[in-house]
Amino acid sequence: MQMAELSRRSMVPVATIKYYQREGLLQPGTPTAATRAEYGEQHLRRLRLIRALVEIGEVPVAAIRHVLAMVDDESVSLHDMFGAVQYSLGPQPGRPSLDPDGQAARREVDELIDEMGWKVSPDAPARELLASALAALHRADAARGPSLRTYASAMAALAAREVPSVTSAADGKSRVELAESAVAAMVLHERVIVALRRLAQEDASAKFFAGRSAY
Amino acid sequence: MQMAELSRRSMVPVATIKYYQREGLLQPGTPTAATRAEYGEQHLRRLRLIRALVEIGEVPVAAIRHVLAMVDDESVSLHDMFGAVQYSLGPQPGRPSLDPDGQAARREVDELIDEMGWKVSPDAPARELLASALAALHRADAARGPSLRTYASAMAALAAREVPSVTSAADGKSRVELAESAVAAMVLHERVIVALRRLAQEDASAKFFAGRSAY
Repeated sequence: MQMAELSRRSMVPVATIKYYQREGLLQPGTPTAATRAEYGEQHLRRLRLIRALVEIGEVPVAAIRHVLAMVDDESVSLHDMFGAVQYSLGPQPGRPSLDPDGQAARREVDELIDEMGWKVSPDAPARELLASALAALHRADAARGPSLRTYASAMAALAAREVPSVTSAADGKSRVELAESAVAAMVLHERVIVALRRLAQEDASAKFFAGRSAY
Repeated sequence: MQMAELSRRSMVPVATIKYYQREGLLQPGTPTAATRAEYGEQHLRRLRLIRALVEIGEVPVAAIRHVLAMVDDESVSLHDMFGAVQYSLGPQPGRPSLDPDGQAARREVDELIDEMGWKVSPDAPARELLASALAALHRADAARGPSLRTYASAMAALAAREVPSVTSAADGKSRVELAESAVAAMVLHERVIVALRRLAQEDASAKFFAGRSAY
């Protein structure tokens, strides 16, 4: 296909596609004339993956280049590739806060990971992301919901089903295709979970407060 | 306390506190001299709530004003207040896409909400947030994870425990205090869930790929 069709099918403007090419995120097409090139399905797949990373994952362009390099490098294991993707996702945690609430929250995270028996790198940005949310909960004197372990167990149950199913659906796919589809699944399912949580909360609130005129 | 202490304890710079006051998010202190005012615990709580909404909830300032007005208005039910908060949270969904993937995704969302028996307003932004993620999954040819119903059931189980516990911990709290702590809990637990999901995924990936040299 030509550039115009690539733009139409990917729903990415031509100027944006050219920007991605200049930034090295998208490989050039096959030249067919001085100012024309032919693009294939691999360009379309790559563009859709880039859009998912940008729009849903809030990944900066420099980090996308790094992620895509790992997607393309057959010597990188899928586990390492997942790590690179996940560590590049927004929101990036801020600097660790040194006040007592911040320190207590980091201890709580370490203890939880121990208790759950989770194998997580000491560098994982999600540690600080969790600690900063816990510290903010404490500072805001927020109402206590279910225990942290309840949330952790629910997420562990989902992850244990998700990782194998996302990486094993290899029906004739090349490694690059498998990697692309697994990265897209990982990033997009995070948005799916947030949206479902909001819908479920609206329902739970409607049912809980129905008839409770005291509130 | 005076402004300097309010700033220190809330970890919000004085200039930012004054900005919130000009924008009507934070009530003025009690004047004690021409250029001095006294602030209380209610100012501290309010500032922490505003920070949670800004930093974690990505709520724009105009929407925070609307949320806080509902927190303060005793004639508004907690259910309506939760709705106002949730509908103001980022990321706001973009315009519904009119292509076949977008339309199919919206039908999938409607069907899921029906199947789950969820009571959700037709205006809930989370509907479109979910539909856009599902459409992107489809377009990116993303690997299929567990079914949408699996995710929805996990979120429903959490919400059913969370809504009652967050709103019932009323031990001597005023309605405003209860509302503030419930809003903070709602917003911050979303970040907790995202962070826990990433930690759980790193662990599941480490365990799944351990020894699988083929990947």
